Amino acid sequence: MAPKYAIGIDLGGTKILTAVVDAQGSAIGTAKKTTQAEKGPEAVIARIEKTMEEALDEAGVKKDRIAAIGIGAPGIIDSANGVVISLTNLPGWRNVEIAKALRRWHTVPVMLSNDVRVAAVGEHRVGAGKGTHSMVAVFIGTGIGGGIIINDQPWVGLRASAGEVGHMITLADGPYAVGGGIRGGIEALASRSAIERDLRAGIAAGRRSVLIDLLKEKGNDAITSSVLAKAVSKNDPLTLEVLRRAAYYLGLHAASLINALDPEMLVYGGGVIEGLGEWMVSQIRDIAKQHAINKADLDKIKIVEAKLGERAGVIGAALMALDALKH
Amino acid sequence: MAPKYAIGIDLGGTKILTAVVDAQGSAIGTAKKTTQAEKGPEAVIARIEKTMEEALDEAGVKKDRIAAIGIGAPGIIDSANGVVISLTNLPGWRNVEIAKALRRWHTVPVMLSNDVRVAAVGEHRVGAGKGTHSMVAVFIGTGIGGGIIINDQPWVGLRASAGEVGHMITLADGPYAVGGGIRGGIEALASRSAIERDLRAGIAAGRRSVLIDLLKEKGNDAITSSVLAKAVSKNDPLTLEVLRRAAYYLGLHAASLINALDPEMLVYGGGVIEGLGEWMVSQIRDIAKQHAINKADLDKIKIVEAKLGERAGVIGAALMALDALKH
Repeated sequence: MAPKYAIGIDLGGTKILTAVVDAQGSAIGTAKKTTQAEKGPEAVIARIEKTMEEALDEAGVKKDRIAAIGIGAPGIIDSANGVVISLTNLPGWRNVEIAKALRRWHTVPVMLSNDVRVAAVGEHRVGAGKGTHSMVAVFIGTGIGGGIIINDQPWVGLRASAGEVGHMITLADGPYAVGGGIRGGIEALASRSAIERDLRAGIAAGRRSVLIDLLKEKGNDAITSSVLAKAVSKNDPLTLEVLRRAAYYLGLHAASLINALDPEMLVYGGGVIEGLGEWMVSQIRDIAKQHAINKADLDKIKIVEAKLGERAGVIGAALMALDALKH
Repeated sequence: MAPKYAIGIDLGGTKILTAVVDAQGSAIGTAKKTTQAEKGPEAVIARIEKTMEEALDEAGVKKDRIAAIGIGAPGIIDSANGVVISLTNLPGWRNVEIAKALRRWHTVPVMLSNDVRVAAVGEHRVGAGKGTHSMVAVFIGTGIGGGIIINDQPWVGLRASAGEVGHMITLADGPYAVGGGIRGGIEALASRSAIERDLRAGIAAGRRSVLIDLLKEKGNDAITSSVLAKAVSKNDPLTLEVLRRAAYYLGLHAASLINALDPEMLVYGGGVIEGLGEWMVSQIRDIAKQHAINKADLDKIKIVEAKLGERAGVIGAALMALDALKH
């Protein structure tokens, strides 16, 4: 029998990443475009279709070999009906029947799920978590999202909203999250936007920092993960202080996950981790293990960096779509 | 075929509760004795045997109708080998082969598990959580323990230590738990011992309180859940203040569980809840729902009192023992 392929799509607020993925979870052809979400759903769906054509061409695979399509999207998702109810930061998107739209392009089953959940599945199936039966993925970017794997399967929850580990409250009465979210949740304490808030407050309070020059060079825009990495490499005291505090909170949050779920692995990904790597993860690991209640065999629980980078989502979405064919 | 029964045993630090339980989860005969743990494992096992004889007699069931025995115990448990590695607050118990010992009394399979996990299973199977597929039980007594049900089964975790929800960190850098445990964990904020600590601190700081008289009446011993209930019924300002703060933290903790796991139900039990009931649970419910990140269909998640009281453990242990026969 000819091998089956699926297309995986990561529909983000700023970019669309699409891949042709084989049953082993290899992305054999990819394509990327800006989302241009402001042009509305129809235009975005046309752009998704273009990325699918390009990814097929890149992979050298014909459309009729694609057995399923999987999409991950940020926001409120009705997986059962393949509808994006709302898309994070994109108020124009309401009740978009994306699965139906994509079936017009190619008549195969379409699986729609939460963007971080599909990325967690990608890391579990072929990334850092390969071979584990239980795992929590924590992705630290502008916000903090995650996915929980229990008994080899993504745990979806009653309302399909399980995995919002960024909104576990770690510092009661702590700061509000930048751009909404739960007060004192780990997103409000340790996301890139929380880190940026604290760094800017430090600078505003008169702290000296290499960030001031780094931001001038870039025209004073966002404190990206690569700016953070540069400031750490220069041993900038303000940056080290703020990031160590964020890592401390992430370590406490990790301990909460370990104490509640006792998973085989915690996987850390997202821009902040891609920028800072083991420097950040090792701090999270140390604090987490200090705050685990059960110290027996604690080293069996692995706390590691994600492996797939931006491809986790497309690979996870494609594999979930192929899995759904079996049911 | 004659109906099958199991014996369920709740081995606590101060008392042993034992029941003959039918396959529907009804406790048809029970017996209770003090543990007298200081006399050592052999003496305690003899006392367990006596409770089993008494429960059989109470139920009018012959020993040969017992198909399995289930035990829940607090501490570090090696379920696979039926060994109590250590028992909470009982330093004399080390590596006690309790399953083996009980098989000398009756040659049937013996299932040993964590005491709160078996209580969670009891509530799930025939108590408040009956009919749900996912549930978290939170038992608030001297400490705070819990159990997580996922896809109708207790989630055990890599090291069989899942469900330690009392050690999810809710106030980073908060107080240490009375008698050990994790700093800023919900046990350190809202267990009966944390509540007692805060009340005594208030009294020591010169606050007036009906507790002062209530404790004198009782000879100044522990502030039990029934003392708390009495002080609430008298609208004692100090007690209301401390308990509302505890309920607030419990509500934040509940929101963390909802955001991470999106379960069908949270079930609250243990002495503090048995004493204060819906007065406490309604506060937890309100705060939890305010801090849930996904408000869609939020009322589908039920936050309720446990139903089985002290019988949750023996029923859960017996049902888990019967379940194990099927595998």
